[in-house]
Amino acid sequence: MSSQIAPITLADLQRPVRARLEAVPQELRRIVEADFGLIAQVNSHLFQMQGKLFRPTLLLLANEATGSHDPRTVTLAAVIELIHVATLVHDDSVDHSVLRRGMPTINSLFSHQVSVIMGDYLYSRAVIELVRLDDLEPLRVLSRVTNEMTVGEMRQLLAHEPLQFSESAYDLLIQAKTASLMSGACEVGALRAASSERTALRRYGAALGMAFQIIDDLLDYVGDPSVTGKTTGSDLREHKVTLPLIAALPRMDAASRAQVDALMDTPEPDDAQIGEVIAAVTEAGGLEYARERALRLAQQADGELDALPPSPGRDALRAAITYVVDRRR
Amino acid sequence: MSSQIAPITLADLQRPVRARLEAVPQELRRIVEADFGLIAQVNSHLFQMQGKLFRPTLLLLANEATGSHDPRTVTLAAVIELIHVATLVHDDSVDHSVLRRGMPTINSLFSHQVSVIMGDYLYSRAVIELVRLDDLEPLRVLSRVTNEMTVGEMRQLLAHEPLQFSESAYDLLIQAKTASLMSGACEVGALRAASSERTALRRYGAALGMAFQIIDDLLDYVGDPSVTGKTTGSDLREHKVTLPLIAALPRMDAASRAQVDALMDTPEPDDAQIGEVIAAVTEAGGLEYARERALRLAQQADGELDALPPSPGRDALRAAITYVVDRRR
Repeated sequence: MSSQIAPITLADLQRPVRARLEAVPQELRRIVEADFGLIAQVNSHLFQMQGKLFRPTLLLLANEATGSHDPRTVTLAAVIELIHVATLVHDDSVDHSVLRRGMPTINSLFSHQVSVIMGDYLYSRAVIELVRLDDLEPLRVLSRVTNEMTVGEMRQLLAHEPLQFSESAYDLLIQAKTASLMSGACEVGALRAASSERTALRRYGAALGMAFQIIDDLLDYVGDPSVTGKTTGSDLREHKVTLPLIAALPRMDAASRAQVDALMDTPEPDDAQIGEVIAAVTEAGGLEYARERALRLAQQADGELDALPPSPGRDALRAAITYVVDRRR
Repeated sequence: MSSQIAPITLADLQRPVRARLEAVPQELRRIVEADFGLIAQVNSHLFQMQGKLFRPTLLLLANEATGSHDPRTVTLAAVIELIHVATLVHDDSVDHSVLRRGMPTINSLFSHQVSVIMGDYLYSRAVIELVRLDDLEPLRVLSRVTNEMTVGEMRQLLAHEPLQFSESAYDLLIQAKTASLMSGACEVGALRAASSERTALRRYGAALGMAFQIIDDLLDYVGDPSVTGKTTGSDLREHKVTLPLIAALPRMDAASRAQVDALMDTPEPDDAQIGEVIAAVTEAGGLEYARERALRLAQQADGELDALPPSPGRDALRAAITYVVDRRR
């Protein structure tokens, strides 16, 4: 799946839903609109930071692939992105992040206070919009997802103790932090489909989301900074323990293990120290292990799609798996 | 209304709904329950800080006074308190507050990060619980209220420029920050009542909430610290401009005005400086003005209750007005 010649681009897989996807940013603007100056200012900065709309893409494709053509999907796709953005605004504030998508974060450009309030503003707008659809189903899925994401964030706070952070704890973390929203996006796109298809898409999204996060964590070890836009080793620099390190630890020799301990004990490890640990993780097979797990999850996601009839939408959902696993950023 | 001999206690006005009110804390525990250790820890600290349940009281009384005996009210009352607590957790984090109800805030006891995530956790639990009631009406009211509160918080951030902060801006601020949730509590208690009663209670709650906040701001000028549990002048210390100062400013002489300017230019004003400005605000009639506005709002709230039939519930809602206006803490 990851060995084909022409890499799959996001534009490729967005093709079947292009028209609806192009309507999402305007819908998003309508939903978050504010007449209070400071909020309008933050909104306009957020629009400049606009991301790849991957979650709205999944929602629209799930809708397309189940042939249910729900007329509310553009709104739902905008709400999914809004929940994602609200979460990022709070995450950046919690992590004291300075840059996001190559632009200053809300906490760095405005203030930490503005970030906290703005995240709440955006999330409550999402709920208002879901209420306006006069249907409890999307709210049922997305309120659960949002709550799971907060639990994931709490788990993240404690994920800085390599000896105490197991692979199963990591799984719970990435499930809550990343997979739940992707799974919710797929499920909400299929709310009017048969229950077997809805379940298959929910599971597809969950497996895809876990693979997505594992690849993200892997790119932090092996990514090319000129492509990812992030410094390699930034997780290690912040003492964040992810799958490559978790998998490598039990197979490391005493010397490598001591390097890991030293890094974790250094408040601000330098590039050389980080480079050593990346090499040790690589040598102990941590990267390989993580990559294999991502591929197994990709297979699982692929298998779920067998529950759907063949269609360009389903093909695009398959392509999304390849896109996630092969991405370089 | 504020001149009676025996002061009205909260217990007095809670009498008609005592049994249901006593069931609220346990319902709240059920709603926020978490199996993740850190969240359970924060929850248990929040329960130790439990407040006066004033908003649940209003909700239950509104329900009682409209005779609609909605069986969901204990849950709705718990959700109102939960939204209030979620807001306080974020507010304390935004304001870097150290104490709340005489106990350490979540941001001071745990961390700022835990506060941000925990506020999100609590609010999303409130939404989940509202969805479980299988009725969009409470969600419609409370999602709007929550959004208004975020706008109020944003306004609060800008309320530190006395020359630019007018009485109408103050009104918008306290409407959004305080009155909207009290109004929402009263409206949600009356969702199954006649539309005229629902409207009257919404307006009652809005006027009561504005009076509540004005009295709160007044107590910061005149309160007895041994009763309020807060230091007098803490708003001035933080350069927060409230109604007494707004009303006094245009009537101050140049010397007093200069004292205000000096205080606003001093990063950490001392007690003497604060005492001088409190005296100047008092002399210029700022306290009297604020008190009169609170009383006019109290009359407005009182007038709205005429739309309801006489009942012990209505009497208690009237008593709540006196309680708000006469309170010393």
